[in-house]
Amino acid sequence: MPMTQPGAEAIAADHAANTAAAKAAAGAAKAENAAAGVIHSRLANGLEIVVIPDRRAPVVTHMIWYRNGSADDPVGKSGIAHFLEHLMFKGTHAHPQGEFSNLVSELGGQENAFTSYDYTAYFQRIGKEHLGTLMEFEADRMINLVLSDEVVGPEREVVLEERRMRTENDPSAQLDEAVQAALFPHHPYGTPIIGWGHEIETLGREDALHYYRRFYTPENAVLIVAGDIDFETARDLAEKSYGRIPARDDAPSRRRPREPEPRAHRLVTLADEKVEQPTQERVFLVPSYTTAAPGEAETLEVLAHVLGGGPSSVLYDQLVVEQKVAVNAGAYYMGSALDDTRFWVYATPAPGVSLERLDDAIGAALDKFAASEIAEADLKRAKNRLVAEAVYAQDSQVSLARWYGESLATGLSVEDVAAWPERIDAVTAADLTAAARKWLQKRRAVTGFLQPEGEDQAGLAA
Amino acid sequence: MPMTQPGAEAIAADHAANTAAAKAAAGAAKAENAAAGVIHSRLANGLEIVVIPDRRAPVVTHMIWYRNGSADDPVGKSGIAHFLEHLMFKGTHAHPQGEFSNLVSELGGQENAFTSYDYTAYFQRIGKEHLGTLMEFEADRMINLVLSDEVVGPEREVVLEERRMRTENDPSAQLDEAVQAALFPHHPYGTPIIGWGHEIETLGREDALHYYRRFYTPENAVLIVAGDIDFETARDLAEKSYGRIPARDDAPSRRRPREPEPRAHRLVTLADEKVEQPTQERVFLVPSYTTAAPGEAETLEVLAHVLGGGPSSVLYDQLVVEQKVAVNAGAYYMGSALDDTRFWVYATPAPGVSLERLDDAIGAALDKFAASEIAEADLKRAKNRLVAEAVYAQDSQVSLARWYGESLATGLSVEDVAAWPERIDAVTAADLTAAARKWLQKRRAVTGFLQPEGEDQAGLAA
Repeated sequence: MPMTQPGAEAIAADHAANTAAAKAAAGAAKAENAAAGVIHSRLANGLEIVVIPDRRAPVVTHMIWYRNGSADDPVGKSGIAHFLEHLMFKGTHAHPQGEFSNLVSELGGQENAFTSYDYTAYFQRIGKEHLGTLMEFEADRMINLVLSDEVVGPEREVVLEERRMRTENDPSAQLDEAVQAALFPHHPYGTPIIGWGHEIETLGREDALHYYRRFYTPENAVLIVAGDIDFETARDLAEKSYGRIPARDDAPSRRRPREPEPRAHRLVTLADEKVEQPTQERVFLVPSYTTAAPGEAETLEVLAHVLGGGPSSVLYDQLVVEQKVAVNAGAYYMGSALDDTRFWVYATPAPGVSLERLDDAIGAALDKFAASEIAEADLKRAKNRLVAEAVYAQDSQVSLARWYGESLATGLSVEDVAAWPERIDAVTAADLTAAARKWLQKRRAVTGFLQPEGEDQAGLAA
Repeated sequence: MPMTQPGAEAIAADHAANTAAAKAAAGAAKAENAAAGVIHSRLANGLEIVVIPDRRAPVVTHMIWYRNGSADDPVGKSGIAHFLEHLMFKGTHAHPQGEFSNLVSELGGQENAFTSYDYTAYFQRIGKEHLGTLMEFEADRMINLVLSDEVVGPEREVVLEERRMRTENDPSAQLDEAVQAALFPHHPYGTPIIGWGHEIETLGREDALHYYRRFYTPENAVLIVAGDIDFETARDLAEKSYGRIPARDDAPSRRRPREPEPRAHRLVTLADEKVEQPTQERVFLVPSYTTAAPGEAETLEVLAHVLGGGPSSVLYDQLVVEQKVAVNAGAYYMGSALDDTRFWVYATPAPGVSLERLDDAIGAALDKFAASEIAEADLKRAKNRLVAEAVYAQDSQVSLARWYGESLATGLSVEDVAAWPERIDAVTAADLTAAARKWLQKRRAVTGFLQPEGEDQAGLAA
C-alpha cells in the first residue's frame, strides 16, 4: 500500500476511522477508539509523525520506529540490526552512556527497545510534561551516536551470550531457527533476528557505524506519540528536536529477494536429550498484509482464529476434545510483515501419541475444513471475537501505539489500521474455504518435529 | 590454499608432479602424465596461464575460466552468471554475433561454455595453428561485448524456456532444487545455477553489463591451454591478445556467507503424478577441497568411493546385493567447491520397498560403517581404483584441462592438482571411520524423497 506522500501533512484518519466504527460489529463497538483523532503528518526532513490522543491519564508513550530490521542485514553480517539496537544505548557526546536511561528512570518512566525482521524501535512511557526532553535525547542519538572499540567489543560478547542463552541451550529455539531457515531459503526471514553466531562474532565498530549511517535517518523513521497530548503540541516538540536533523538525499532502500513458489514439503526434525515435551508445528508460506491481494490477509487472519484461536477453535475441538490426540492445538497468522510471511498450525501430542500420528490428524483436520464451509453464525461470532480482542488489546496505550508503528514500518498506512475491523467483517465463509485450499497446501509448508533424543533417529546421533 | 602470488611467473609444477608420480600406487602409474611439464604463469595484467603439454595430436584445447559463478549472483538477480554466459555469444563491434562460432566451426573445431556455482568457462578445441586466432576472439569478447535490448530480451526468453524444459516439467529437478535450498538456506549454493524463474524474468541489459564489467577482467580469469604446444609459444600468443587488455585496480571480490552448523535433519518430499520411479537421496553438508583441513577432503573422496563408487561398494553390496531393498545405490562427493559443499548418498528402492524403509536401511548401513574399520587391502584397492579412474579420465585433453581450470577457479593451485594422487594414497582406514562419524551425521543432512502423487501425502494436494 502506498505511504502518505511527502508534503501531504496533517492527514487526519478520522473519517476512515468513523466509517469503520459505524460498520463494525457490536463486539467491536470500541473500535472507533483505535483510530479516533489519530493524526498523521510529516516533518520537512521526512520524519513521519503519528499522534494518537488518549486522555485517560497524564502520560505519553513516545516511540521511534526505524524501517530496517534483521531482514535488511547485509549478507554475512546477520545480527547487525539487533546489535546496533544494543549499541544505541552507548551514549553521545552530549549525553554519555547511561544518562538517557537514568533520566527516564528518575522521571518515573519506562523504556524499551526491540528489533524485528522489518523494523527496529525505541520507546519510553513517561509523564506528559517530559515528552520534549525525551524527544531531545532520542533525536540526539539518531545522529550523534558515539561508538568506540571499547564499548563495541564487550557489547558483542553480551549479544553472543544472549544468543547462547536463548538459542544454543534451547532445543525448541534451535528447531525454530531450522524451520524458519527451511521456510525461507531465499528470503532473509530465514535468518534469525539475533543473527547466526559465527557472523555476530565478526561484527565490529565499522560495521555498526556503516549500518547506523545508512538507516538511522529521519526519512527512515516514524515517530509515534500516544497519550495526553494534542497534535500541535506534539508536532511543535518534534520540530524543535527531530526537525533539526537534516534530511538525507533519499530514504534508504530495502533490497530483498522474493521467495520462489514452494514445490516440496519439508520436515525438520530436531531430537535432543533436553526435550521433555515433544511438539509439532506446520508453517505455511503465505502473503502478508503488505503483499496480499485485497482482503486476502484479513481472510488468513480470520482463518487462523477459526482454526486455532483458543478452546472453541476447529483444531482444538477436533484434536484435543474429540480425538484426544493432542493436549493443545492452535494456529497463528503473522500478518504484519513487509514480505510474504508465515501461517502456523501447531499442536502438543497427548501422552503416547507419536508426532507422525498427530501430524496426520492435523492434515486430515485441515483437509476436512477445506472441503466444507463454516456456518455463518460461527463465522460472525469468530470475527466479532477477533475484533473485540484486538480492540481490547488496544486499550493499552503502548499496544495501540505499537500497532500503528508496526503497520507504518511494514508499508501500511494509518487508514489501513483504521479500516481493519471493517475489512475483517467483510470476510466470508467462502473466502475461508478458498484460502485454506490455496494457502494451506502441504507443499507450501515446513513441518517441525521436536522430540527427545533417540526417537526416530535412525542414522548417526543427531 | 593460497593462489600463486602475482609476479611469481612461470612456476613449473614438474617437481611436485614427479614426486607424486613416484609415490603413486601401481594403478596410478600414469599420474605423472597429469602434471608433467605443466607450467603456470601470469601476465602483467593479472591473467593466469596454465599450459599443459599433450603432443599426441596437432590440436589444442583453449579455455578461459572466470572466477565467478551463480553463487556470486547479486541478491535478487539469481541467474545472471548463466544469463551472461549466453550473452557472451552476442558479438562485439569487431566480430558481430555468430562470427566467432562460425569461425570455430569452419576451422573444424568445437566450442562450448558452462556456468557452475563457482565459475564460468568458455572453451574451444581446434587445430593448433588456429590458437592465436581463438585467443584474439576470446580476448575481444572479454572487454568489447556489445549488448542491445534487442538481443537481451529474446535471449532471456531462451533462458526461461531452458528453465521450463529442465526444471518446471521435471519433478526430479524440482526436488533437487528444493533439497539444495534446504541444505543451503544461508549460502548461495542453495540457489539453482540457472536462477529462480521470477528473478530471471527481471534480468535486463543493465544488469548484464554491470555484472560483465565487474567480473570479466584479466585478474579474474584463468587461461588454460592444453595440447600440442610449448609454453613459450602459448604465452607469446596470449601476450599479443589477452595481454593488451588493461588490468583493473584489483580482482573482484566474492562475498559469501558461511552456512551455520546444521542442527536438525530435514526431509524434503516431492510427490508428482509424473514420477514413475521413486528415489531417495541424503545430502550432507561437508567441507570442500578448498575449505577442508589438510587431508579431510581426500578422505571424503575416498569415503564416497568406498561407500558408493560402483557395484563393489559398501552401500551397493549391503542394499542391493544382500538386503535387496534397492536396485541401485551410490555415493558422491562434490569436492570441487570454493565453500562448504555436498556429500550425497542415494538409492533407488526395489519394487514394493517404501522410501522410509530404504532410508532406514541406509542409515543403518552408515552406522555400521562408522562403527567398524575397512580392511587395509580393501582400502588400498579402492584408492588405487579411484586414482586410476581419475588418471584415465585425464587421458582426455579436455578433461585434464577442465580439472586444472576447475581447481584454479576454486582457490586451489597447480601444485594441489599435481599432488592429488599422493594425498589420496595417504588416507587411512581410521580416517574413513572418523570422517563418517564426523560428517555423515543425520543432523547435517537433507533427505530427499521423490515419489508418485498420492503416497505419504496426507494433507492438501501437494
